[in-house]
Amino acid sequence: MSGHKAHRELAPKVLNFYVITISTSRYEKLIKKEPVVDESGDLIKEKIISSGHKLIGYDLVSDNKIKILKAFISAIDNPEVDVIVSSGGTGYSKSDMTVEVIRGILDREVEGFGQVFRYLSYQEEAVKSAAYLSKATAGIVNDKVIYILPGSPDAVKLALEKLILPEVSHLVFIARSK
Amino acid sequence: MSGHKAHRELAPKVLNFYVITISTSRYEKLIKKEPVVDESGDLIKEKIISSGHKLIGYDLVSDNKIKILKAFISAIDNPEVDVIVSSGGTGYSKSDMTVEVIRGILDREVEGFGQVFRYLSYQEEAVKSAAYLSKATAGIVNDKVIYILPGSPDAVKLALEKLILPEVSHLVFIARSK
Amino acid sequence: MSGHKAHRELAPKVLNFYVITISTSRYEKLIKKEPVVDESGDLIKEKIISSGHKLIGYDLVSDNKIKILKAFISAIDNPEVDVIVSSGGTGYSKSDMTVEVIRGILDREVEGFGQVFRYLSYQEEAVKSAAYLSKATAGIVNDKVIYILPGSPDAVKLALEKLILPEVSHLVFIARSK
Amino acid sequence: MSGHKAHRELAPKVLNFYVITISTSRYEKLIKKEPVVDESGDLIKEKIISSGHKLIGYDLVSDNKIKILKAFISAIDNPEVDVIVSSGGTGYSKSDMTVEVIRGILDREVEGFGQVFRYLSYQEEAVKSAAYLSKATAGIVNDKVIYILPGSPDAVKLALEKLILPEVSHLVFIARSK
Amino acid sequence: MSGHKAHRELAPKVLNFYVITISTSRYEKLIKKEPVVDESGDLIKEKIISSGHKLIGYDLVSDNKIKILKAFISAIDNPEVDVIVSSGGTGYSKSDMTVEVIRGILDREVEGFGQVFRYLSYQEEAVKSAAYLSKATAGIVNDKVIYILPGSPDAVKLALEKLILPEVSHLVFIARSK
Amino acid sequence: MSGHKAHRELAPKVLNFYVITISTSRYEKLIKKEPVVDESGDLIKEKIISSGHKLIGYDLVSDNKIKILKAFISAIDNPEVDVIVSSGGTGYSKSDMTVEVIRGILDREVEGFGQVFRYLSYQEEAVKSAAYLSKATAGIVNDKVIYILPGSPDAVKLALEKLILPEVSHLVFIARSK
Ligand SMILES: [Mg+2]
Ligand SMILES: [Mg+2]
Ligand SMILES: [Mg+2]
Ligand SMILES: [Mg+2]
Repeated sequence: MSGHKAHRELAPKVLNFYVITISTSRYEKLIKKEPVVDESGDLIKEKIISSGHKLIGYDLVSDNKIKILKAFISAIDNPEVDVIVSSGGTGYSKSDMTVEVIRGILDREVEGFGQVFRYLSYQEEAVKSAAYLSKATAGIVNDKVIYILPGSPDAVKLALEKLILPEVSHLVFIARSK
Repeated sequence: MSGHKAHRELAPKVLNFYVITISTSRYEKLIKKEPVVDESGDLIKEKIISSGHKLIGYDLVSDNKIKILKAFISAIDNPEVDVIVSSGGTGYSKSDMTVEVIRGILDREVEGFGQVFRYLSYQEEAVKSAAYLSKATAGIVNDKVIYILPGSPDAVKLALEKLILPEVSHLVFIARSK
Repeated sequence: MSGHKAHRELAPKVLNFYVITISTSRYEKLIKKEPVVDESGDLIKEKIISSGHKLIGYDLVSDNKIKILKAFISAIDNPEVDVIVSSGGTGYSKSDMTVEVIRGILDREVEGFGQVFRYLSYQEEAVKSAAYLSKATAGIVNDKVIYILPGSPDAVKLALEKLILPEVSHLVFIARSK
Repeated sequence: MSGHKAHRELAPKVLNFYVITISTSRYEKLIKKEPVVDESGDLIKEKIISSGHKLIGYDLVSDNKIKILKAFISAIDNPEVDVIVSSGGTGYSKSDMTVEVIRGILDREVEGFGQVFRYLSYQEEAVKSAAYLSKATAGIVNDKVIYILPGSPDAVKLALEKLILPEVSHLVFIARSK
Repeated sequence: MSGHKAHRELAPKVLNFYVITISTSRYEKLIKKEPVVDESGDLIKEKIISSGHKLIGYDLVSDNKIKILKAFISAIDNPEVDVIVSSGGTGYSKSDMTVEVIRGILDREVEGFGQVFRYLSYQEEAVKSAAYLSKATAGIVNDKVIYILPGSPDAVKLALEKLILPEVSHLVFIARSK
Repeated sequence: MSGHKAHRELAPKVLNFYVITISTSRYEKLIKKEPVVDESGDLIKEKIISSGHKLIGYDLVSDNKIKILKAFISAIDNPEVDVIVSSGGTGYSKSDMTVEVIRGILDREVEGFGQVFRYLSYQEEAVKSAAYLSKATAGIVNDKVIYILPGSPDAVKLALEKLILPEVSHLVFIARSK
């Protein structure tokens, strides 16, 4: 598939990432000035940096429609940001709403991302059938690429290693092209 | 993925199932008081019971919008019911409409279920590429979980063994949680 | 899965295909009367014919909403046509719009096609994670089956060999049945 | 407009109505066996009968998605019913959901009904600008006509006198015609 | 409202119209080479010409999804065409589908057109409450303006005199502007 | 209509308004530090204050998806704000996008507002048929009421005097109630 190879060569090699964690429990600790451990957020940051990209922003918000929108809009409005990766709020409890909220503002949804991610999750022994319990997805707004991941560190690790880091420069290149 | 494991431990172990078969040919036999063989319906019931859950209702309806809605609404309105599993009407002939009709009343669609189910169906030698000919899906209404399966016994067997029975307690637990 | 087998036996064996290539660069060459190489279009035609079906029409259009609609509507309106296969315009650059445009006129989308196609693409060493960058899909209009494929020859080859040719007679049979 | 006149002459003169009141407060009284005054429901029944049509069913339900669906589906499934008129649940408080719920099952929405109704409401001195606070609408399911009215007696009176009773035979005739 | 006045002065004074009649009964006469009277089509043409615009095309099609699409797409693809006016297929019988079909290809729907048209229809003594039985609407595709009117000559006359002819140059100007 | 009257008496009498002007031309003047005349914005502020409500914020943004979202989200996230009134970006030129963008984040759209507003605009001699050229609408997010008005001072005056100021306390009361 020479088209993909050619694109990958032209694509920007170093991208600026913005990381958003959506977690009411962690946000409440933050507000109370208690120590907050954001394992998935930390893992995303670490993976981004160790793969040669830059981390230029981070936000932690509760599972609240307006707070989620505010965090994403602020990142999208930042001209330095190339890619946004969020974790949390992609499941089926009543408070999970990240996907529904952000879908309302996407220019285009990358519908295949969630599908391939769920296929790969199913291959993991510790996940198997639980793979179908996440709405993880991706999309494009304003020439920026957004990945909306589950809150679990294992899910975040899988998505970054197998799908995001190998393809993100390529997708940013495509999203920006006419 | 400790989150999934923790949830699974908290989840209800014995659930009450309601089974709905959508099949015009079988329904017409029923009306004419001819013997009706509902192989897929029987298989669903058997799998539910042998896995330790309870069967508390069963309905057989034709491929008719209002009859389908009536059967599902009656099951959803029953406070004893935890899970609804239907079979039939998920294909692409003009009479197949179960998915379209029930989508109109879901609170949330579990979009990953159909995707992982089609991936697993593709792995079956007897199905292979025919896997893409079903719209099988799942969803949540009123804290109850609904699985909409194809009419073929093999499809029903696969969905129950690999996706529904391993995860349904977990999903009911999530659907009910805040 | 005897149902699938029975259907396959009843289904029409020889189908009439219409091939549409969506590619602004190729279209511009055509307009300037420069030689046009349409590798994917040629591959689709070849695969169709070598599998015993008939090619009864071909069109090459640019990535333009009205030109794309015109080409598809003209093929759908042709009573001889059973199946339409297009390539191109399924990616995420701003000019890619084949899927969005044709979705607006489908009677039913075969949502599983794109999902299984992306799973199969992921298995290809040369594609891997790039599998999630295509919106390839399928649908039914007026009892005709439409496949909307990416522009790359490898993608087209995979879709035809693994998903379209093994199942298209079956799907045409279903689409026409009550 | 001779077309409208011709249709009106062919249309059925006596129709069977089913009336549904959606009101949590009245439903709770009913449950407690306290006396229930359903002024709007009574007014609808009276108007229907005094205009020569027949009332063949009545239901009172709370503002609850499944109870609302159940009442409507039961009326739609009754082959004797030609027209369903509901009152209540069309406003903008959090419990108002009749329109959203029933929209999910309509075959076609009669989008002009709510628009003309709001225009007529605006002409009423006691309503004026409050006219825009209702989502009142109409639709067609299974060849039956459904009117979804606000809970206020004045709104119900206006809708019946000016829009429903003069046109309902005509619309039933159209809904049933090919 | 000086903005509207200023726009009206800058707007093109002479526009090229394409007229489409959707009527199965008239189309069948045409096919049988019987004389066809298309009163509404004739009225639209007459009004366009007497108001100083040009008529550059006309088509008569049956109430058939693909034939309707073909007629509109052909007009939209014609670079000479500024405005398309159709009549027929906006009601609630099963064969009425013009609005649903064309909505699928609009860039933007002019949602206020149908609303104001239904208000004006209600003012007509011969229409009154029948005003709510039409889905008449308008929209923009490819910088061209489309009006989808009912099949009755009175409705067509009202729409042209009160809403289309006074505003169409203005709307074409807006649709083309950045 | 005693229900409306009762609500009006219970409703909050003094509300906090946030005003947003969407206008690329004015925004560019602001950026260049040229004097900016925002006639519609000023008129909204004046009407709000002279009717006894409070103005607690104002923003001027260009016709840009992300800037529009940012201004609205910031106002919605402010716990002091009860009502947001915007002007601009509701027409049919390519840059007009306020309605489309904000619709993506509304909890519920008040669909009747735009309809009654267009009816009232039609009554104005200086507007007449131009009334159908605006997408003005209203909605509810997070218990706050949002009005999205056209950019013309006459339109803004009409909407405030006839529809917003007489009803806004009532609608805020309803939006907040269970
Ligand atoms: Mg969470
Ligand atoms: Mg069946
Ligand atoms: Mg291309
Ligand atoms: Mg007709």
